[in-house]
Amino acid sequence: METTSQQAVQSAEAQVRSDDRNHVFHSWSAQALIDPLPVAGGAGSTFWDYSGKKYLDFSSQLVNLNLGHQHPRLVEAIKRQADRLATIQPAFANDVRGELARLLAERAPGSLNKVFFTNGGADANEHAVRMARHHTGRRKILAAYRSYHGGTTTAMSLTGEPRRWANDPGDASVVHFFGPYPYRSAFHASSAAEETQRALEHLESVIQLEGPGTIAGVILETVVGTNGVLIPPPGYLKGVREICDRYNLVYIADEVMVGFGRIGEWFAVDAFDVVPDLLTFAKGVNSGYVPLGGVLISDAIAETFANRAYPGGLTYSGHPLACAVGVETMHVFEDEQIVQRVRDLGERVVRPELERWQREHPSVGEIRGRGLFWAVELVKDQSSREPLVPFNASGEAAAPMNAVAAACKAEGLWPFTHFNRVHVAPPLVISEEELRRGLDIIDRALVQADALVTG
Amino acid sequence: METTSQQAVQSAEAQVRSDDRNHVFHSWSAQALIDPLPVAGGAGSTFWDYSGKKYLDFSSQLVNLNLGHQHPRLVEAIKRQADRLATIQPAFANDVRGELARLLAERAPGSLNKVFFTNGGADANEHAVRMARHHTGRRKILAAYRSYHGGTTTAMSLTGEPRRWANDPGDASVVHFFGPYPYRSAFHASSAAEETQRALEHLESVIQLEGPGTIAGVILETVVGTNGVLIPPPGYLKGVREICDRYNLVYIADEVMVGFGRIGEWFAVDAFDVVPDLLTFAKGVNSGYVPLGGVLISDAIAETFANRAYPGGLTYSGHPLACAVGVETMHVFEDEQIVQRVRDLGERVVRPELERWQREHPSVGEIRGRGLFWAVELVKDQSSREPLVPFNASGEAAAPMNAVAAACKAEGLWPFTHFNRVHVAPPLVISEEELRRGLDIIDRALVQADALVTG
Ligand SMILES: Cc1ncc(COP(=O)(O)O)c(C=O)c1O
Ligand SMILES: Cc1ncc(COP(=O)(O)O)c(C=O)c1O
Repeated sequence: METTSQQAVQSAEAQVRSDDRNHVFHSWSAQALIDPLPVAGGAGSTFWDYSGKKYLDFSSQLVNLNLGHQHPRLVEAIKRQADRLATIQPAFANDVRGELARLLAERAPGSLNKVFFTNGGADANEHAVRMARHHTGRRKILAAYRSYHGGTTTAMSLTGEPRRWANDPGDASVVHFFGPYPYRSAFHASSAAEETQRALEHLESVIQLEGPGTIAGVILETVVGTNGVLIPPPGYLKGVREICDRYNLVYIADEVMVGFGRIGEWFAVDAFDVVPDLLTFAKGVNSGYVPLGGVLISDAIAETFANRAYPGGLTYSGHPLACAVGVETMHVFEDEQIVQRVRDLGERVVRPELERWQREHPSVGEIRGRGLFWAVELVKDQSSREPLVPFNASGEAAAPMNAVAAACKAEGLWPFTHFNRVHVAPPLVISEEELRRGLDIIDRALVQADALVTG
Repeated sequence: METTSQQAVQSAEAQVRSDDRNHVFHSWSAQALIDPLPVAGGAGSTFWDYSGKKYLDFSSQLVNLNLGHQHPRLVEAIKRQADRLATIQPAFANDVRGELARLLAERAPGSLNKVFFTNGGADANEHAVRMARHHTGRRKILAAYRSYHGGTTTAMSLTGEPRRWANDPGDASVVHFFGPYPYRSAFHASSAAEETQRALEHLESVIQLEGPGTIAGVILETVVGTNGVLIPPPGYLKGVREICDRYNLVYIADEVMVGFGRIGEWFAVDAFDVVPDLLTFAKGVNSGYVPLGGVLISDAIAETFANRAYPGGLTYSGHPLACAVGVETMHVFEDEQIVQRVRDLGERVVRPELERWQREHPSVGEIRGRGLFWAVELVKDQSSREPLVPFNASGEAAAPMNAVAAACKAEGLWPFTHFNRVHVAPPLVISEEELRRGLDIIDRALVQADALVTG
């Protein structure tokens, strides 16, 4: 019996592998050079492969699975809505679509009272930019280097990192500027306060030199995600808000990755006490159980489209099945006190542990983060801050980071690594025991990096 | 009791209306000028509002609901997959993702063997264009006037109709040309054969004048959907294929609206015996029960990205819940012999009825279509062919078409109207009785148009 069921599992895995290799074209990859792991199932903060090997999911898939794998209430919400009404087109009014829009508006700061729903983060940013352009009658958008905003043409052009390179030129009306990054200051600042002041001066210079009358708005990840968990230093986002007000620009906050509890706030802007004019979301809004994204819209911008048609749309805007999971997500957040537990775990468990790494691992240059979203920046030399691997390294040059990742996987943790960083981004429902166990695994894996420290 | 439950329904409807009007931002609309109908439920070819009024859905929502509302097997597929694994990120191998890719590749013609999954039609076209550009190393894309390709920047720029206007300039490397449209020939042709020949000459002229060495590819809706159910005349698509081969251009077929049985074929290109290099799909692949789209990729283009990374992606590429409904859709198509029944109903029921309208209604200029996808083009004058309402009419100018639509709705049919046309696009599972009943309603509504005929 044992053997027969083992054989069945093996042949299921073989089928998954062969279908995948023969027919699935994967994102961001050279198709012949990848070997995707067949995943057999998941629950909570864990998923497993066909051999039964379990992984603690410290990347929440693509930092979207805020409530973890197979949360029973989200699964139930899907099934309930599937029985009621799986889909209806955007021109109708639908109960769960309206309910989710209301729940989001109630939780969002300021007058962000209307929601335009999309399928994901890229199209949310595309539509936010379009709204800003039509609202102002101007075209240019300022976006930060070290940012990711999505894979469609305008979202790609907003992106300030290598994934954009091969796709230039796309949307020609995007200009990049430098955001704050105290550890590697573009402004030669020596304190957080100086970084804030100089980064704001820089932004204002770019606006003046590009011509305020040509600029529709500024887009910023509230906390930069994939490109480094860059927490804006005190006063920076407030300063951006003031500059946007001074020049009459639309401030777009991209919270696709950091909204919905990731940093221990409903919306990440809440931590910085600013209100953008447009706020884009996806991922955590329903943990990606059904594709969903959207734009929260201020009253002033909604008013622009009160009597003038908004020139955009998509077939699945406000998809009922996706919205139903969003509605349940809002309730689970409250019932399980997700925001509070994320803050608690972040400060009580993660921060002290990462601070210890910084003291004890010669390869740890900086640790930074908030809630359940942290970066550990690895260096060859703590004083020169030379990254453990070069910017955008691949192949042999990336071997040291691959060794760290492999050590994590060997011990049953699926890490999120990017360039010379290991991020800590587990599901927000992770237990304290799992969190500590996962951190211990990374702790041990860092020995791989320590061995390469030259400084 | 009766009254209490009526009151409950009324208050439910009031809540839907107020949530919608206060918080939902709708596609393509001036928000203050719309009054979206709250839909309470749906089954098969019918949906209903909160008063219990039923509508025959002759638009299949946005021509996506090929298997109708709440098909029990699709609902079951959602629930089954929700219990197994709602989501997993694109870098892993997943059973249903691979299975759907294989089922699609098995059904698609030629060497369209790999699938890049997206969330909908717009991003499918964005990625197809990117693949064509990277495959050829060239940028320009030729797209047809009277086309719709989606709402993100490049998809919008491909679009050859008014929805693009307010969004210009977007992707600057798109050039529009005229496709065949025998009833309103751009080439002064007097037969279908002449239309084909002249439309191909025109396309080749545009290619020569734009410079073949600057062009990556040509994108065409296999049958133009929203912009008129324009069935390409015999030989046209074969001619396009030959021209693409001659100049080494990528031929992209957009089958977002017409794939999966709509015209009585698995893929619409099958009706015209051509094989494109890339074929984009969405909507009918899973009837939109969960957002899903994608690109079918030829071996030659896949090979380009074997050892070189494809520079694109999205968080929900190959979403398991969406793919599970796609897999079940393929099986339902076979078990219910959807393709065959669509052909039968189209030829046996729809065509004769519409031909009768053309003979009997002075307002009917032309009828055309295939399978369960037809257009009835309304005119003021059958000999001059002047459209019943001007191109892109709105407000008062559109009143005659609104009157036809209102007459349909009053009798319990939800029509698809666009410009001076009524389309017939019901779910492919519609019963013969419902189909005949719906056609009778449109037949009677056309009297509204007849009254305005001047010729
Ligand atoms: C900050 C940010 N914006 C936008 C996106 C794009 O979202 P999607 O992949 O759903 O298009 C991402 C995805 O990782 C993101 O992290
Ligand atoms: C032919 C065609 N292409 C692309 C699209 C865009 O699809 P989506 O709305 O899913 O982005 C549509 C939508 O109607 C379409 O009809």
